[in-house]
This record gives sequence, structure tokens and C-alpha cells, in this order.
Amino acid sequence: MTRVDSRRRPNAAQRRHQLCDAANTLLAEDGPRGLSHLKVDRRAGVPDGTTSFYYRTRVALLQGVADHLARYDAEAFAQAFDDVPDGAGDDLLPMLAEQVLLVRDEPHLSRTRARLELTMLAKGDAGIAAGFQQVSESYRALTERLVTAMQNGLTAPLDRSLLDEQVSVVLTYLSGLVFAFANGSTEPMTSRDIQRQIRAVVIGVAAERLSQTS
Amino acid sequence: MTRVDSRRRPNAAQRRHQLCDAANTLLAEDGPRGLSHLKVDRRAGVPDGTTSFYYRTRVALLQGVADHLARYDAEAFAQAFDDVPDGAGDDLLPMLAEQVLLVRDEPHLSRTRARLELTMLAKGDAGIAAGFQQVSESYRALTERLVTAMQNGLTAPLDRSLLDEQVSVVLTYLSGLVFAFANGSTEPMTSRDIQRQIRAVVIGVAAERLSQTS
Repeated sequence: MTRVDSRRRPNAAQRRHQLCDAANTLLAEDGPRGLSHLKVDRRAGVPDGTTSFYYRTRVALLQGVADHLARYDAEAFAQAFDDVPDGAGDDLLPMLAEQVLLVRDEPHLSRTRARLELTMLAKGDAGIAAGFQQVSESYRALTERLVTAMQNGLTAPLDRSLLDEQVSVVLTYLSGLVFAFANGSTEPMTSRDIQRQIRAVVIGVAAERLSQTS
Repeated sequence: MTRVDSRRRPNAAQRRHQLCDAANTLLAEDGPRGLSHLKVDRRAGVPDGTTSFYYRTRVALLQGVADHLARYDAEAFAQAFDDVPDGAGDDLLPMLAEQVLLVRDEPHLSRTRARLELTMLAKGDAGIAAGFQQVSESYRALTERLVTAMQNGLTAPLDRSLLDEQVSVVLTYLSGLVFAFANGSTEPMTSRDIQRQIRAVVIGVAAERLSQTS
């Protein structure tokens, strides 16, 4: 196959990638209402009917976009965090804060808005929900590494139920922050602010437990 | 006017209320895609064209629903919190936790989902955003009362910038929790869990500051 041919006829994976990027942008701009097979064709600049060929139904298209977003997230995660040695909480914390701040700018803003729209839709669709399950598990695992590393200086042995609650509250806080950023929150937040607030949550959950048991 | 007449011809305010309730349900069930003037007519069981008469455009309808939801929130707030005396943090905390838990059940679940959908849409629409501005200010004022009351036992004078950060992190945490509940989070959470986690955030933000300055 010549070079020209390969440019003219992208393979199925490339085509799906291109269509999902277009669907993603439409979702982010106008919500689920902005999404139709034909609109995706037009936005991607491909012949009418292309999106319907690759994704027969609306649900198939939405699941495709969910998987596509999940892959982006997984890649970003791998790039950002896989090389960080275990126990290096000092490194993980600023990196996590930076990842969250990225949400305010493109292309992350559109992807995040599309992901939130799909999460809202996923309540009635197990297929979409499954697409995000893996991302959400990676996110929890990373937060658990972070919280564990942050407490390495402590002498007490690891308390599983305390760790679980610390991770849950950090994740809930981060989810609230991402929702605000994705919806144009004007509150100025720096990486240092986010790092400080994550530390505050981790410290606070532990301190609250201590005050209950003492 | 006889009683029958008044039942047959609801006044404009009642009609708008009825239409917004229907629009609300459609938004919660299917997102913005599920909303059209005709669908609202059908859902509310009123003659075709009624919704278009009261809300000429889609934006007018969305702003109407946003205002309608904001009024519900304001009423719920007034009922739940207005009688609580200032400084009664012990009373406010469980009441706030209960309000958050209500989100998991109808009619609050649908209203919350509609509110989240509208918040996502509001990024590009100042009219919708304004509808929620007042609710969000009430919510912040209440959280500030709560956080202030929780620290009345402390001897140190009130630190404005600390209080602001405590309130912000509590609000971010609550926003993450509401988003999770509105999207069918299966994590079991009791009122006591939420109260403990709010206390943890308030304590943690203060402790983190102390650790930085000492």
C-alpha cells in the first residue's frame, strides 16, 4: 500500500478514534443533545453515514465515546504516575494536583465535560458505566498509594478502615473540584492550594477518628 | 368564580409550576436531549402549545426550570435551617447531613439531576447560571454558619482566611458527594458518616495550617 492510500483510507481503529474525538467535542459543547450520528460525521469531516457504519446505535456510539475517554485517561495516568516509585508521596501529591488543574484547559476540559455528561447518562446504561469503571479504579488505587505514602512517617501500623475513609473523602473532594473546574469555576486555585487541601483531608480524617476514640 | 372554574383554569403561576415540574422530570430522566416544548406539554398532560405559550424559546424554558429548582431549594433551606439559632453547630451538622442524604430519593433525586444537567448547560448561559447563584450563596452562608459554630469551643479568634478555606473545602466535598448520590453511587453512607467527614474536613484544614506555621 502506498503512502497516499494509507492516508486516504484510515484503518478502523483510526477512524473510530477520529469519530470519537468529534463526538467528544460535540458532547462537551452542547451536551447529549448535541450528539447525533450525522452531526459527528459533519464535525469529523467524513462522508455522511460513516458514524452509523462504525456505531450502529446511539448507545453503541455513547459506549464508544466512553471507552475512548477511558483510554485517554488511562494513558495520561500511565504517563504521569507509572514511573513514580511506591512510597514517594512527596512526588505523587504535586503530580495529582497538576492533573486536576489540567481540567481547566483544553483538550482536557472538553474530555472532562464529555465524561461528566456520560456519567450522568450512565445511570441508566451499564455499558457506559463499565467503560468508566476501570478509570475510576485506577484513580482510587493511585489515591490509595498517595495517602499511604503521605503517612509513611507515622509510627502507627496501617489502619485499613481509616485508609479507606481517607481515600474516599479525598476522591469525593477531587470529584467536587473537577466538577467545578469543568463548569468554569472562577475560584482561583493553585497546585499548592490543592496539595494543601488534600493533605488537610488526609490529616483531618485521621484526627477525627482519634478524637472519637480518645 | 366558582370552584370548578378555578380548577379548570389554573393561573399563570400554577401553570408554570406544573410545566416546570414536568420539564424537571424529563431533564432528570433523559438529560437535556429529553427536553422539548412538546414533550413537556405531553408530560404535563396539557394541550400542545401550552409550554411554548409560557416559555417562547428553549433558553426561556431552561431558565424557567432553573428558577423553579432554585425556589424549591430555597424553600427546603428555609424549612430546614431558618429556625436554628446561630451558633448551634450541633444542630446544624446533622440537619445538613440529612439534606444531603435526601438527594438519593425522590423527588430530590430528579431535582438534583436536573440541577446538575442545568449547571452543565449554564456554562454557556448567564441566565441559567444566575438562577442558581442565589442558591449557591445560601448554601455557602449556611456552611459558614456551621463551620463557625463548630469552632466556638476554640479559644483562638476567628481567622477569616482559614474560615473561607474550611467552607470552600466542605462545599467541594459536599458537591462531590451530591454528584455521586445523583448518579447512583452504591457506597453506603449514613448521616453519621457524612457528619464525621465534614468535621474531618473542618479540623483538617485548620490542622494543616497550624503545621505550616509552626
